[in-house]
Amino acid sequence: TGRWGDEFELQVFFSSGKCNRGLSVVDSYKLLKGVDVLTEEEMFLASTLGWCIEWLQAFFLVLDDIMDDSHTRRGQPCWFRVSQVGLIAVNDGILLRNHISRMLRLHFKKKPYYADLLDLFNEVEFKTASGQMLDLITTHEGEKDLTKYNIGVHRRIVQFKTAYYSFYLPVACALLLSGESLENYSAVENILVEMGTYFQVQDDYLDCYGDPEFIGKIGTDIEDYKCSWLVVQALERADESQKSILFENYGKKDPACVAKVKDLYKELNLEAVFHEYESESYKKLIADIEAQPSVAVQKVLKSFLHKIYMRQK
Amino acid sequence: TGRWGDEFELQVFFSSGKCNRGLSVVDSYKLLKGVDVLTEEEMFLASTLGWCIEWLQAFFLVLDDIMDDSHTRRGQPCWFRVSQVGLIAVNDGILLRNHISRMLRLHFKKKPYYADLLDLFNEVEFKTASGQMLDLITTHEGEKDLTKYNIGVHRRIVQFKTAYYSFYLPVACALLLSGESLENYSAVENILVEMGTYFQVQDDYLDCYGDPEFIGKIGTDIEDYKCSWLVVQALERADESQKSILFENYGKKDPACVAKVKDLYKELNLEAVFHEYESESYKKLIADIEAQPSVAVQKVLKSFLHKIYMRQK
Repeated sequence: TGRWGDEFELQVFFSSGKCNRGLSVVDSYKLLKGVDVLTEEEMFLASTLGWCIEWLQAFFLVLDDIMDDSHTRRGQPCWFRVSQVGLIAVNDGILLRNHISRMLRLHFKKKPYYADLLDLFNEVEFKTASGQMLDLITTHEGEKDLTKYNIGVHRRIVQFKTAYYSFYLPVACALLLSGESLENYSAVENILVEMGTYFQVQDDYLDCYGDPEFIGKIGTDIEDYKCSWLVVQALERADESQKSILFENYGKKDPACVAKVKDLYKELNLEAVFHEYESESYKKLIADIEAQPSVAVQKVLKSFLHKIYMRQK
Repeated sequence: TGRWGDEFELQVFFSSGKCNRGLSVVDSYKLLKGVDVLTEEEMFLASTLGWCIEWLQAFFLVLDDIMDDSHTRRGQPCWFRVSQVGLIAVNDGILLRNHISRMLRLHFKKKPYYADLLDLFNEVEFKTASGQMLDLITTHEGEKDLTKYNIGVHRRIVQFKTAYYSFYLPVACALLLSGESLENYSAVENILVEMGTYFQVQDDYLDCYGDPEFIGKIGTDIEDYKCSWLVVQALERADESQKSILFENYGKKDPACVAKVKDLYKELNLEAVFHEYESESYKKLIADIEAQPSVAVQKVLKSFLHKIYMRQK
């Protein structure tokens, strides 16, 4: 007991995640190379980078759950909630992060792109931690204040906290593995960050309008006072009396308050606003992707887009 | 208010520290080059690495204080104790760490030793976090159990948690800056880790026997159930009845219990045991240092040793 089960805990943690981010390194690399089957070494290196991304996410999740005072993660109690762990989980998170550097050193030290790989993980970690900071100081600090929420704030949080590590990082890993220099791919970076933003807007939408049976959880963004895309849209469209409904009811556990917020969303027709956003985003993304000079890169970007477009969970 | 004072807080934090670790990069580099005055660029680069070590320590201290549930640090409330900060301090710690990588990229990216510098900081961070883990699981987990404390446990905690980042890291930075490859300096690494161990043993000794007026704090290792060098020595030397005194009184706030432990230390003559250890360590370290082929390296190591030998605080 105690900490002896850590290795098993890690196994459970990863096997109950979907590993989308990790797997997409392998998929993207295949598309960039234009092959269906990789050599054993290529497969090993691409998978290693995929695992590094999964470990990076594990590090973020372990620490975010502490800061958000969360209860469950991937169907289990959060790591810091396990008795005999507690705040030692902070150090465990650091150790998860340290192992990424160790894996990279072990398998990539001799590669010409080794320093770029370290820089990439460092920079994405910094962007994600900055996004977490923006989220924490916007959502949690001092009294609840809806006037701080607007589309610019929402974009910044989402791009930094989610889009870079979930969308840009897997493709950037695949590009480095293919011998490309990331300096030449800032347009690809922008497209992927835009796609990550779109993904998070969907997430915000599904939190309220998704089928709980189907998405596997009951949304609580309204109760939790989240800077959700929906509340930002509502604030933009509400007249003074509607605004006061939001100010009075947003961020309260009482189901009657939640219902009033949802009624207002309906009144403001946010479902239609979302579908309009979704189809506009899609059109814009497709246009940007097709402006890319490399067909292989287009394929990578389209494969990401088609995994998330019109998703129901 | 709120987070707007962060930059000022950092200033206060660093100016109330002694910056020994950071400054020793500059000192060591001068000794390695055999000059009293550095060029402006050399001074800038050595100082930058010194600051990176100070930021690394800041990152550790911010997080350690959370895990140890500490109250004050460098004469101020711990960062997580500041209202409106709380557990957001975890993310602030991560951001401090991230800035090391950013400073290194900004100023060292073009240097031939850039990847080695990143590896060094990563490896030392990993060692320190491993030491913190050893310390936490030995000192805190489950019921208090003195039978877990022995000299091997003490050494491992001290070497990993303190010696690598405080003693090895500054010299390793100076060596890289001088164009040396760290692979050729494993003997130097061992000597510095040994010196760091000796430094921590002194710290443990001074916690009990130092003059509180002079060292600026009142030791509480006995009350805090610390795996101190003193209790390890006591356990090694105690007969059954003396052991039961330790088991009954170690780790209790009651001044009467603390006094009983101190009486036992006296009975076992631990002051003399320490002075014997101190002079033996010194002799061994000097012999190892003088076996080093480079006189410049010898000077670096001796300058460290003479800063700490026979220190009273």
